[in-house]
Amino acid sequence: MSNSVGAVTPQTMHFDTPLACRSGAVLDAYDLMYETYGTLNAEKSNAVLVCHALNASHHVAGFYAEDPRKVGWWDNMIGPGKPLDTDKFFVIGVNNPGGCFGSTGPASINPKTGKAYGSSFPVVTVEDWVEAQARLADRLGIARFAAVMGGSLGAMQALQWAIAFPERIANSIVIAAAPKLSAQNIAFNEVARQAITTDPDFHGGDFYAYNVIPRRGLRLARMIGHITYLSDDAMMEKFGRSLRSGAINFHFDVDFEVESYLRHQGDKFSEYFDANTYLLITRALDYFDPAAACDGDLARALAPATAKFFVASFTSDWRFAPERSREIVKALLDNRASVCYAEINAPHGHDAFLLDDERYLALVRAYFENVANDLGAQV
Amino acid sequence: MSNSVGAVTPQTMHFDTPLACRSGAVLDAYDLMYETYGTLNAEKSNAVLVCHALNASHHVAGFYAEDPRKVGWWDNMIGPGKPLDTDKFFVIGVNNPGGCFGSTGPASINPKTGKAYGSSFPVVTVEDWVEAQARLADRLGIARFAAVMGGSLGAMQALQWAIAFPERIANSIVIAAAPKLSAQNIAFNEVARQAITTDPDFHGGDFYAYNVIPRRGLRLARMIGHITYLSDDAMMEKFGRSLRSGAINFHFDVDFEVESYLRHQGDKFSEYFDANTYLLITRALDYFDPAAACDGDLARALAPATAKFFVASFTSDWRFAPERSREIVKALLDNRASVCYAEINAPHGHDAFLLDDERYLALVRAYFENVANDLGAQV
Repeated sequence: MSNSVGAVTPQTMHFDTPLACRSGAVLDAYDLMYETYGTLNAEKSNAVLVCHALNASHHVAGFYAEDPRKVGWWDNMIGPGKPLDTDKFFVIGVNNPGGCFGSTGPASINPKTGKAYGSSFPVVTVEDWVEAQARLADRLGIARFAAVMGGSLGAMQALQWAIAFPERIANSIVIAAAPKLSAQNIAFNEVARQAITTDPDFHGGDFYAYNVIPRRGLRLARMIGHITYLSDDAMMEKFGRSLRSGAINFHFDVDFEVESYLRHQGDKFSEYFDANTYLLITRALDYFDPAAACDGDLARALAPATAKFFVASFTSDWRFAPERSREIVKALLDNRASVCYAEINAPHGHDAFLLDDERYLALVRAYFENVANDLGAQV
Repeated sequence: MSNSVGAVTPQTMHFDTPLACRSGAVLDAYDLMYETYGTLNAEKSNAVLVCHALNASHHVAGFYAEDPRKVGWWDNMIGPGKPLDTDKFFVIGVNNPGGCFGSTGPASINPKTGKAYGSSFPVVTVEDWVEAQARLADRLGIARFAAVMGGSLGAMQALQWAIAFPERIANSIVIAAAPKLSAQNIAFNEVARQAITTDPDFHGGDFYAYNVIPRRGLRLARMIGHITYLSDDAMMEKFGRSLRSGAINFHFDVDFEVESYLRHQGDKFSEYFDANTYLLITRALDYFDPAAACDGDLARALAPATAKFFVASFTSDWRFAPERSREIVKALLDNRASVCYAEINAPHGHDAFLLDDERYLALVRAYFENVANDLGAQV
């Protein structure tokens, strides 16, 4: 693994200050699982926070010594000499509260009851996550991030940072995003949630006590998700109408390769992902809509932001199409904010933000070189 | 209901000649449920067969005297003075074998066992349906249809008619179609099927004996379907991010109107649709690919056709996009077939083929006026 940050070790930080969520619920105390790569400089000015989307975690780059196949989800983006260069930047990945990769979430034991939170876990929002991330930054002594960066739901967090903590973020890197979900986006989330909540093994979210997991529901949720991550063309390119056994078998088991792929993805996902976390994260997506508090005026919602912005979208992304990124760019330009926008001609759909597209990676690299130069100038 | 064909009565016809299916399975005997509107002329030359898609039936036009709200699914298209004018044409709607609206299907009693067919019902294909429809035509004394017409999966039957029985079809009316499903199309079908088959109440397709139905699975299947029938814009126009109670409630019950809509559609569907029929019909969609037998050469597959074609697509249809209809048109033009093609600028998505779009209905009307004139000229 050339240019890898190498073997990494996740860390846990405990927080005793209650997190008052937007819903009114309070998380009395919680742990956050995080990883860091690179070195925080003496001025503590070179920190970059990388926010995760639906299925990812704090494990953003590098690998685990005990299992080198567990490579970080954005390892092609982050490392020594990579677009987000860990020779220059101190990079932080954090699993959000409500997650299922080590931070306190629905599967964690609620100290008050001695049982898993389950259905009692607060319905967390992007705003709550950003607040929790800010507290982690406090504890790490980071007053201001050189950048907050994310793709998809992660990008919404980067946007929210610019709104909620303008003085604490120099650059907001917003990739494959939307300023709010469309009705169709919500609809897909809703079907996934219904698949989970109507699974007889869900038990109203408190399945932990029954020693079962709503595997069927999670599996369907993931299959639906996968369809929306890929473009129609990318799916056709990857699978076409290829038949697994070379012939049609006139049954409802796997005939087409695409069926095999979806089932495999669903099966894998249901082994490791928490059903309640899936509900929480899709709901956070649904609810994110900073313009709602400003009569739908996104420019007004973004008015507090003083960060510089890098916004990128992908032509074949039908989940968060380029039009949706342009809404963000338009609002930022209306505010006379500094914004670089790239619409990348890529065939892969929403997943493109995670893939090796040379032009895309070169643009992010160039942007971060400027961020690094700005840091140097400040010193 | 102006211009309605009025109160109609479905009829049943029994067939004793076994239907040898493409799968190799044989349906020994079966009933077909059908309706007719208008009058068959003395020459028996004015018959039009209307083929149904996933969720529809033989009840194409008019209403039932005992329940006038049960209006035919294409009543805006078919009736006296309507685009397909029952003052001129004798129109037939038929529920295909494997259906759940009166024709022999998985819920029917297999006379050999005295139990519901369930999982033993043959995996029927578009080719099998067209064969069954041809036998119905034989019994009605119709040697040649003035037209065979359908939208979506119904249009695939209209295409197959032109290939399988070129001498028996003067015009093929192919609306909102594709010559075969894409990987994404198959993927959506597969998720729906997995929702049904993994429902604990499915019992391998033989749920009838248990006095349960896989309601959860059917509900999810329908919700997924509905998303693909509407365009993103149409959904945004219809529901936007409207909140049912005017505010976000931080739960997983209905917050957004689109959630309420989908759940309602799913609930309704699960009350009346048979789960095995859903599997069969989606599989028939997956398998339809007339070009497959000709090394993928659609023009060669369509070469036997002597019918004239009317092909229409809708700009916002992302299930079967206009590009897919153009593949059909291109193949027909390569064969120097007679083809009218209309690409209709409509915002509604795939569902547009069922809706009142003036330009669309005017084009179908004009086409059928020509068909009627041709009939007159023959007489």
